[in-house]
Amino acid sequence: MQQSRVLDLSDPVVRVLEIIGVTAFAISGALLAVRKRFDLVGMAVLAMATALGGGVLRDLILGATPPAAFTNVVYLVPPLVVSLIVLWWHPVLERTTRVLMVFDAAGLGLFCVTGTVKALEFGLGPVQAVLLGVTTAVGGGVVRDLLAGEIPTVLRHGSELYVIPALLGATVVVLADLADGPATPTAVSAAVLAFVLRMLAMRYHWRAPVPRGTTSD
Amino acid sequence: MQQSRVLDLSDPVVRVLEIIGVTAFAISGALLAVRKRFDLVGMAVLAMATALGGGVLRDLILGATPPAAFTNVVYLVPPLVVSLIVLWWHPVLERTTRVLMVFDAAGLGLFCVTGTVKALEFGLGPVQAVLLGVTTAVGGGVVRDLLAGEIPTVLRHGSELYVIPALLGATVVVLADLADGPATPTAVSAAVLAFVLRMLAMRYHWRAPVPRGTTSD
Amino acid sequence: MQQSRVLDLSDPVVRVLEIIGVTAFAISGALLAVRKRFDLVGMAVLAMATALGGGVLRDLILGATPPAAFTNVVYLVPPLVVSLIVLWWHPVLERTTRVLMVFDAAGLGLFCVTGTVKALEFGLGPVQAVLLGVTTAVGGGVVRDLLAGEIPTVLRHGSELYVIPALLGATVVVLADLADGPATPTAVSAAVLAFVLRMLAMRYHWRAPVPRGTTSD
Repeated sequence: MQQSRVLDLSDPVVRVLEIIGVTAFAISGALLAVRKRFDLVGMAVLAMATALGGGVLRDLILGATPPAAFTNVVYLVPPLVVSLIVLWWHPVLERTTRVLMVFDAAGLGLFCVTGTVKALEFGLGPVQAVLLGVTTAVGGGVVRDLLAGEIPTVLRHGSELYVIPALLGATVVVLADLADGPATPTAVSAAVLAFVLRMLAMRYHWRAPVPRGTTSD
Repeated sequence: MQQSRVLDLSDPVVRVLEIIGVTAFAISGALLAVRKRFDLVGMAVLAMATALGGGVLRDLILGATPPAAFTNVVYLVPPLVVSLIVLWWHPVLERTTRVLMVFDAAGLGLFCVTGTVKALEFGLGPVQAVLLGVTTAVGGGVVRDLLAGEIPTVLRHGSELYVIPALLGATVVVLADLADGPATPTAVSAAVLAFVLRMLAMRYHWRAPVPRGTTSD
Repeated sequence: MQQSRVLDLSDPVVRVLEIIGVTAFAISGALLAVRKRFDLVGMAVLAMATALGGGVLRDLILGATPPAAFTNVVYLVPPLVVSLIVLWWHPVLERTTRVLMVFDAAGLGLFCVTGTVKALEFGLGPVQAVLLGVTTAVGGGVVRDLLAGEIPTVLRHGSELYVIPALLGATVVVLADLADGPATPTAVSAAVLAFVLRMLAMRYHWRAPVPRGTTSD
């Protein structure tokens, strides 16, 4: 592990982004549980799996065992609190799916940053760090969707650009690291960039190319 | 690793519980394979994945690699024997689903104990040990249900309390460990407690709360 | 790690087989993405997950972290190139499913060899090495099918013998290792054996026994 990283996991900004990301994904998991009519326990399990899935996958890949979620109790609080809140308040939230996708986008943006930071800290090369950042960012959503019996958002046709925003956010972190850029602005702007791109892609229905002969709708 | 644990993996009682749990989950996997009309090979794969999935997940999370299932041949015997027996005898078993859930409950009870014991042995804190115990207990069933194309039992609405029994069983192990309780009675009673609670929840249709506005049936 | 292995991962033949296997599985993933009408990004994700899933699982189980796919950029090239080619050329390929299964069989044959070789190199016993070889061989396809919302090929009734060819290929590698057989012929013939057996099983509809009372069709 190198010590001169622009960003590392002990940075307060990285820790705060990670907890916000955990919370955002927990909300997306709890909302999907509502739509699937799971009970409180199922909701807590899905919230926890969504919130912690990406980070656990990242830590297993890095060999950083036990993963942070199994050593630091703080990660367990957001999914549990979120489940209780969503259990009582969800009817207030109209159009569950739309709200779910906003929180999913927030989790995506935040985790692509923390995943990339941790990968660099563990000595992965630039391309690999981007790959692990994207894996961390999409991992929680994939776990959520598989457990709920849905095709993962990351794959679905018509799921407007999902991987590209995470890829760009992770790339910003890697480039700033190579260029010795400033830590906090880098982390925050990379997360915001990925989040905003994902939101814009959903708003304006940006699409990746589809195979020839397949209609785009 | 601490040496003064109330229970550790070298305890014969823990090893026996683990093998019974492996066998119980193998039976649940083989029975689901029957219902899904898989052939003998598919049945053996599903029995093996169910029996070993929770323990492999536990060992990957603890960094105890290669997982026990890949170092000790004894774990492979129950799934293979079970597959052959179920292949020929299953028509005797009426109401496959009901029988499947009984063996699943047994696996749940047994693995929440062995998962928690191994977590404590690897130095995880009490809350984390309970979390890993529950993860180990539900892991095999999640793998089984995902592979068979079903929503995991642990999440399904109307899947009467599944996580809570495992949570209580794991908690008993942690409390006994903190209080230096007696080893064998602790392990056995925690496993029985979780199993009996799960069976009672199925018998009397105990339910966790559901989100407001969702009917409970 | 023993030094006197018949085959190890530094053998050029093993590296070449691994890259061909990665490419074959990538093609199977990209073709399934076409059938599922995913866009280019979903296709690249599915191609990558299929191509790298088995090897990542193998490396996590062995504790060889970070997995090869996250340390060596060369593994990322085939899935990306394949996705671009399939995006434009796929209409040329008639009967996607059939072609998909041929490439899947090639990946199966190649990965049962490289998985077993790496397992032996890490000191696993013969039976465990075969188990890990099979896990590596079927892992990528399982990940592909789960992500695409299908029951894994390895389990489906009527999926003509899938595990058995991988099991025999892995066994050939283990036996050659025990007997100090010649490296290159062993690796190549084991991969070809598994591939040909799988193709013959599909061609002639060989089937494993099904549970009594279930019709075989």
